Amino acid sequence: MTQWLVNGMPDGSLSPQDRGLTYGDGLFETIALRAGKFRLLDFHLERLQVGCERLGIPPPATELLRAELKQVAVNCTSGTGKIIITRGCGPRGYRAPAQAQATRLVGLFPDSAGSLPSWRDGIRVRWCRTPVAENPALAGLKTLNRLEQVLARSEWEDEAITEGLMSTPQGQVIGGTMSNLFMVDDGQLLTPDLSRCGISGVMRRLILKVAAELAINAFEQSIDAERLLAADEVFLSNSLQGIAPVIQLDDQPLPIGPVSRKLMQALSQRGVSECAAA
Amino acid sequence: MTQWLVNGMPDGSLSPQDRGLTYGDGLFETIALRAGKFRLLDFHLERLQVGCERLGIPPPATELLRAELKQVAVNCTSGTGKIIITRGCGPRGYRAPAQAQATRLVGLFPDSAGSLPSWRDGIRVRWCRTPVAENPALAGLKTLNRLEQVLARSEWEDEAITEGLMSTPQGQVIGGTMSNLFMVDDGQLLTPDLSRCGISGVMRRLILKVAAELAINAFEQSIDAERLLAADEVFLSNSLQGIAPVIQLDDQPLPIGPVSRKLMQALSQRGVSECAAA
Repeated sequence: MTQWLVNGMPDGSLSPQDRGLTYGDGLFETIALRAGKFRLLDFHLERLQVGCERLGIPPPATELLRAELKQVAVNCTSGTGKIIITRGCGPRGYRAPAQAQATRLVGLFPDSAGSLPSWRDGIRVRWCRTPVAENPALAGLKTLNRLEQVLARSEWEDEAITEGLMSTPQGQVIGGTMSNLFMVDDGQLLTPDLSRCGISGVMRRLILKVAAELAINAFEQSIDAERLLAADEVFLSNSLQGIAPVIQLDDQPLPIGPVSRKLMQALSQRGVSECAAA
Repeated sequence: MTQWLVNGMPDGSLSPQDRGLTYGDGLFETIALRAGKFRLLDFHLERLQVGCERLGIPPPATELLRAELKQVAVNCTSGTGKIIITRGCGPRGYRAPAQAQATRLVGLFPDSAGSLPSWRDGIRVRWCRTPVAENPALAGLKTLNRLEQVLARSEWEDEAITEGLMSTPQGQVIGGTMSNLFMVDDGQLLTPDLSRCGISGVMRRLILKVAAELAINAFEQSIDAERLLAADEVFLSNSLQGIAPVIQLDDQPLPIGPVSRKLMQALSQRGVSECAAA
């Protein structure tokens, strides 16, 4: 049973005129609750603040968000927290109200037994036809405009395929529908440049930090399909699962390589238990 | 005071888990109520059905929507009707539930006196920096993913500027933040091709129909800024205002030309009273 606080009110609901609904005018965060603690919460709250600043939405106090997350998780040690911030209600029309009163939603989805299949031993991935459009104004942000991901995820039903890769109309691979992408080439770590589109994931940020600590060279670059298919290793990342080695991309099998294993071990030592060796 | 029906319930509200909020997973229509009748309602309902089909959302019965619009407008003869259809609630994640139960919102914004400044005598328009991203999967649809329009509209405060023009990152002009674009070149009517992005407006559809009846040649084409600036006439259209001649584009004055006037006269004879000569 999911618990929600809407502007601090338990079981609150949303106005039909909330701009989060009418225009997707807002942002969200999806946060792993593990052993009673929200993982990488500082990273999540930082991204949310940056997003609010870029969209011109008054950001909520982070202490308030921390307190409300604690409140919805009071009887739960493992699950997924969610924060949604919208520009709030306003008159009809795209123009933002001069004095926006942001709407703040904080919820928790408790884990049901076995609800998260482990990605640790590798996942199968496909290509999506739905492109991810380029818009530098929104690039990197986890906005409520996610129809592209919804359409991309609707392209397959096969339960054996965990994730789909999305590219720009110009053929640059950006990431999975719900994950960031990494490839290893000659010992170097590459991840798509997200300055024109894509979501800058918190686990991606942690991986780049850990790579630096391990003296693994890492670069944000343009990556097309040809380059990706020539990689020594490919993996995906997200905040709930850590690292997911890609062991099959369409018909091409891929190994779980040494760089992926090294990063997974390092993440597991930093609280990403999903990456721990079985 | 705005009246809303949510799945037929007066003053209903929305779940925080409605996919219309969480992903912008839905569509909307904005419909002029004039002299007690919803204008171009068939066009609006057709676009909504097409949108539902393209997004895979079970479309609501049009007779139900007509009845609910009548219900919210019972004491009103002039205003703006709004329909929002979302894919409804579902578990967390982009994947659409196999058996989606669409959410249906029908509302009415009554006109306050003088609430709609007339566009008939011409409007001033500017260029927006925020691009409109290309995504053929969503092109033409009036989806709830409208952050680009929100950001573009936030680029100016000057009340003398009515509308801003948006272009693709590749420089193709697509239309205004809340309107479609037309230009006249040597007696021919041109409007941007919307196969890769943009919203296919109901007033745009009526204008193309009326142009055919008046034997004005009309074409959907790629239009860049240079071509637009060389036009003999430029006008915008939307469902609430009909045709708005552009009399100034940034610093460049433009005339209200004979093709615009002819189309405005024809629209005013078809119930678009905003286009009638003063």
